[in-house]
Amino acid sequence: MKKKYLIIGGVAGGAGTAARLRRRDENAQIIMFERGEYISYANCGLPYYAGNVITERSRLFVMTPDKFMESLRVEARILSEVVAIDREAKTIHVKDLKRNTEYDERYDVLILSPGASPVKPPIPGIEHPAIMSLRSVSDIDSIKDKIDSPATKRAVVVGGGFIGLEMAENLKERGLQVSVVEALDQVMNIIDYDLASEVQQHLRAKGINLFLKDGVASFEHHGSLVSVRLQSETLIDADLIILSIGVRPDTAFLKDSGIALAKNGAIKVDEFFTTNDQAIRAVGDAIVFDSPLSKSPVTIPLAGPANKQARLCADNIVDGNKKPYTGSIGTSIAKIFDLTVASTGLTEKGLKAAGLPYRCAITHTGNHAGYYPNVRQLSLKVLYHPETGKIWGGQSVGYGGVDKRIDIISAFIGKEGTVYDLAEFEQAYAPPFSSAKDPINMVGFIAVNVLEGMSDTISWDEAEQARKNGAFMLDVRSEEEFELGAIEGAVNIPNTDLRDRLKEVPKDRDIILNCAIGLRGYFAERILRQNGFTRVKNLTGGFKTYDNAIR
Amino acid sequence: MKKKYLIIGGVAGGAGTAARLRRRDENAQIIMFERGEYISYANCGLPYYAGNVITERSRLFVMTPDKFMESLRVEARILSEVVAIDREAKTIHVKDLKRNTEYDERYDVLILSPGASPVKPPIPGIEHPAIMSLRSVSDIDSIKDKIDSPATKRAVVVGGGFIGLEMAENLKERGLQVSVVEALDQVMNIIDYDLASEVQQHLRAKGINLFLKDGVASFEHHGSLVSVRLQSETLIDADLIILSIGVRPDTAFLKDSGIALAKNGAIKVDEFFTTNDQAIRAVGDAIVFDSPLSKSPVTIPLAGPANKQARLCADNIVDGNKKPYTGSIGTSIAKIFDLTVASTGLTEKGLKAAGLPYRCAITHTGNHAGYYPNVRQLSLKVLYHPETGKIWGGQSVGYGGVDKRIDIISAFIGKEGTVYDLAEFEQAYAPPFSSAKDPINMVGFIAVNVLEGMSDTISWDEAEQARKNGAFMLDVRSEEEFELGAIEGAVNIPNTDLRDRLKEVPKDRDIILNCAIGLRGYFAERILRQNGFTRVKNLTGGFKTYDNAIR
Ligand SMILES: Cc1cc2nc3c(=O)[nH]c(=O)nc-3n(C[C@H](O)[C@H](O)[C@H](O)COP(=O)(O)OP(=O)(O)OC[C@H]3O[C@@H](n4cnc5c(N)ncnc54)[C@H](O)[C@@H]3O)c2cc1C
Ligand SMILES: Cc1cc2nc3c(=O)[nH]c(=O)nc-3n(C[C@H](O)[C@H](O)[C@H](O)COP(=O)(O)OP(=O)(O)OC[C@H]3O[C@@H](n4cnc5c(N)ncnc54)[C@H](O)[C@@H]3O)c2cc1C
Ligand SMILES: CC(C)(COP(=O)(O)OP(=O)(O)OC[C@H]1O[C@@H](n2cnc3c(N)ncnc32)[C@H](O)[C@@H]1OP(=O)(O)O)[C@@H](O)C(=O)NCCC(=O)NCCS
Ligand SMILES: CC(C)(COP(=O)(O)OP(=O)(O)OC[C@H]1O[C@@H](n2cnc3c(N)ncnc32)[C@H](O)[C@@H]1OP(=O)(O)O)[C@@H](O)C(=O)NCCC(=O)NCCS
Repeated sequence: MKKKYLIIGGVAGGAGTAARLRRRDENAQIIMFERGEYISYANCGLPYYAGNVITERSRLFVMTPDKFMESLRVEARILSEVVAIDREAKTIHVKDLKRNTEYDERYDVLILSPGASPVKPPIPGIEHPAIMSLRSVSDIDSIKDKIDSPATKRAVVVGGGFIGLEMAENLKERGLQVSVVEALDQVMNIIDYDLASEVQQHLRAKGINLFLKDGVASFEHHGSLVSVRLQSETLIDADLIILSIGVRPDTAFLKDSGIALAKNGAIKVDEFFTTNDQAIRAVGDAIVFDSPLSKSPVTIPLAGPANKQARLCADNIVDGNKKPYTGSIGTSIAKIFDLTVASTGLTEKGLKAAGLPYRCAITHTGNHAGYYPNVRQLSLKVLYHPETGKIWGGQSVGYGGVDKRIDIISAFIGKEGTVYDLAEFEQAYAPPFSSAKDPINMVGFIAVNVLEGMSDTISWDEAEQARKNGAFMLDVRSEEEFELGAIEGAVNIPNTDLRDRLKEVPKDRDIILNCAIGLRGYFAERILRQNGFTRVKNLTGGFKTYDNAIR
Repeated sequence: MKKKYLIIGGVAGGAGTAARLRRRDENAQIIMFERGEYISYANCGLPYYAGNVITERSRLFVMTPDKFMESLRVEARILSEVVAIDREAKTIHVKDLKRNTEYDERYDVLILSPGASPVKPPIPGIEHPAIMSLRSVSDIDSIKDKIDSPATKRAVVVGGGFIGLEMAENLKERGLQVSVVEALDQVMNIIDYDLASEVQQHLRAKGINLFLKDGVASFEHHGSLVSVRLQSETLIDADLIILSIGVRPDTAFLKDSGIALAKNGAIKVDEFFTTNDQAIRAVGDAIVFDSPLSKSPVTIPLAGPANKQARLCADNIVDGNKKPYTGSIGTSIAKIFDLTVASTGLTEKGLKAAGLPYRCAITHTGNHAGYYPNVRQLSLKVLYHPETGKIWGGQSVGYGGVDKRIDIISAFIGKEGTVYDLAEFEQAYAPPFSSAKDPINMVGFIAVNVLEGMSDTISWDEAEQARKNGAFMLDVRSEEEFELGAIEGAVNIPNTDLRDRLKEVPKDRDIILNCAIGLRGYFAERILRQNGFTRVKNLTGGFKTYDNAIR
């Protein structure tokens, strides 16, 4: 018998499921319901369309209803909002927003991919035409109209996550004055504080006014202008405000359906994307599943996972639950002006919150061979299990090659890899692309040296604590480097002199070594350890990480 | 007791072993012998120094003897050639090329890293000052002198491997007329013929005269000018000739040592880098070991493996053989003008030669989201085991993101990954870096679809064979595309029309589908299969691969 598949939501998860369903089942009837005017659009491209980086609006549409019908015989009903589900009758109730009519449609299997909508907290004054948020094509059309208006000169972006910062960049490129307001003490929460500080410096260097640790208290309306009042009482005038403080599963219409939802409104599914109703599945930004790393429930609003879930969900529908989803580790990335910021797996703060044991290795090194032109520094941080070396996560900030390093770490996490794998990893090396020892290898070496007892690293915050507790801070950089700035109270013995000046190092105190990035500190550590010093630790990431974080 | 480690060769393998040995054993005496004037130089940078891309000569030196002494207390004796080894006495015999003296030096452990030297076959006329090869700093000094001379206008590069093509590019950038002569039917033997044709087109587009399937018969001397006579009788005049037809282990000095060598002159070592003499180890370009993939002996002259072997070798010396080397899969890469060419693991021709079972998946797709500016096509080919899906190898050609894709595949091969892993791989996605389904995912999907019986692919050469054997060649591109060129004898039914024109497709013949790159061919295949057609195959890589290869 011909199956009837109904799909709610016509973008990544919905359209992806529809396409794969057709390839798996030529005879089924497949109908996709989309509330908005467009299906299959490139949400991820919207900020670049606002910035005129993507110049043709039509490029935003990966598929149209016509093309979908032509090539895959999928019926896409736009301007069709699903407002209720009758699970007993196996029908959905649809509002036709164009004709202003309503009707029911029967399903054999129903797939939900309603996505997530921007959070809009009850801040006083939040309802104003200049205060916008960004999810859909119509959102960006409004935002772009506003930018195009000559009266629009000052913008405030509320929220320093990746969508907020992509918007900040594109608004800046369009010539606006841009402020970013973030309630946390850092931007880009997908990475840790020490690396985020590099991003913050870059944003400031690019002329963004950055307000950290400062939330919005209220919006004050003055005609078309809005004054954003921060908790600190700072007042910022703006012609355009982009709200980008996170998203929430767009599942209000499921409230009375009896479909089990998590506290954040996300749809609970099993590893085959089945909800608590066997005939109803769900994918994408709107679902919750267990993290393969922390084992806690997570909602990961990203397009890669949504697309892959969609494909797998279709297979499980047709084949009957043969291919369990192994979950997503939240690999993500953003270009922020000239910088790339990316992360995979768990962060240090995530590990702390989950109470999981970890260690951390950091390196700041060239993205390719140092002697080849245009080498730029790449910061790479890896978190790993202190006994097994299993990789928990990685994060990176730099000007080139960041995406590659994070993808490699993601691949290894996917195979339950360890830092030993990173040390052994065989990269494709020629001077424009890598070094004979890739940053991935280096960070692996650092971690393996710790696991094998060759070295003991300490992170910038622990080092700062140790310093306050009276540790001997030994800076092994050259005198010239030391004079340009050093850790408070540090003593300078260049690593090349250390063998001859061992007497100056106390044996009865904790010794914290630092150099610029950790390498010479490690060389010095090897000398000290093999000369009977045991209370030695090397500051991972060196003065660069410390200075970034302390500033 | 203080150990005495002697090392022969002062670059990647030698210097790398010395450095790690020091960090593992602070008290040992470590002496490194280097025949040339320099240690620790960037061989890989030499072509770019010739091309003035690397402008400062000093940048080529990663370490100097002074720095090595200062930081690691390693004594580097340059201009010191080791000419013999007395294994009984545990001494080496050294020629001091500066003072013109000779002496013996005793060792506890001897490490060999003499590298490999360019092959110089006995072609008539090969001895001429304009005929040069490239390995060391002094080689590049001579080559550069020659390029700098205004009389030098025409260059011939013999050999289309990565060093030859890097030189061709840099000579061209310096304004020379450049010809490349290659005896095989393709350049860049690290990839297969179908992908290499893209490189060849690019070389020609950049103004390189390319001679394929044509070896050098002789060099004819006319004063400072040399005429290169090819087997085809073509004659090319040149002021400068770069010989770059491969390298051979530089082990002539070991001939009488009793150290076991393979037929190609490479030093035989076990997984701890021990030669047949327990006190002598070897690493780098000069060794032979079993490929972890083909299990056959291989010599891999690459800097990444050399450096990693060095580090591991030092550990095995100090710890007593605890860390077996898992081998190298030959991951390598080159920038060739605007293109990047890279490969990892086994090639199709390598698999054929080894008689190993495989299948192949090819995709030509954007290196990042299609709607984001500057998207360029990336060709990606993956070879995998036809039953288990285990990845044998990958290769890629494109303008951006090639290094990343090959590194990801290398990581998966390192973990004995399969094409299922490629399909599931969680990339860092934002429009400038990837697509919601990365090319890595796509090639994984294609392969998994075959493994799961959803699709059956055919390679360009098999398709060509099938065509000759009377298969029905069905081109499902649009009429416009079809008219611009198609496979001989192909019938055109656009994939969007196929459902309505099934009657035109014969049930009693083999059907070979093609579209531009394989995607619509696959869509069409799904329609046909689900309509009872069983003798269907989809041309992997589509018309693009076919046309590249057939031309
Ligand atoms: C500005 C922006 C930039 C982004 N950049 C990136 C990026 O760089 N990388 C990345 O990985 N991800 C990015 N994302 C996230 C990515 O777009 C989402 O993860 C992905 O689109 C989720 O797919 P989905 O199908 O779950 O939801 P959506 O794509 O949101 O689709 C859900 C659709 O369902 C419709 N819908 C909802 N309820 C109903 C209903 N009741 N009836 C009918 N229709 C309904 C909605 O109108 C919507 O069109 C970005 C998102 C935005 C907004
Ligand atoms: C032009 C060029 C470009 C390259 N590009 C790349 C690239 O992009 N990527 C990549 O991975 N690899 C590249 N390589 C290869 C890479 O340089 C080698 O794999 C690596 O240097 C091998 O290290 P090794 O220690 O085994 O040998 P080598 O680096 O060759 O060092 C051996 C040293 O030993 C010395 N020696 C030999 N015999 C004796 C003796 N009897 N006594 C004393 N000294 C002796 C030699 O003079 C030499 O300096 C390139 C090589 C060249 C020449
Ligand atoms: C485009 C969209 C409708 C999905 O449709 P789709 O037909 O699955 O599209 P894709 O381009 O992903 O097609 C991939 C299919 O072609 C196959 N394919 C791709 N290249 C191929 C090739 N060279 N040879 C053979 N098959 C190939 C793949 O295997 C896959 O088929 P499968 O899933 O049956 O294995 C959906 O992803 C979408 O709406 N995207 C836009 C919205 C979005 O993702 N937004 C967020 C990010 S901006
Ligand atoms: C440079 C050379 C002498 C090796 O010396 P080296 O001291 O091992 O140099 P590296 O820069 O590789 O040092 C890496 C060491 O520092 C450590 N390290 C690097 N960054 C670190 C950091 N941020 N924190 C702590 N340790 C760090 C690594 O763990 C490694 O030590 P280990 O091997 O004991 O684990 C040798 O590789 C060489 O001669 N190279 C040039 C020649 C060559 O390779 N040519 C071919 C390619 S062009």
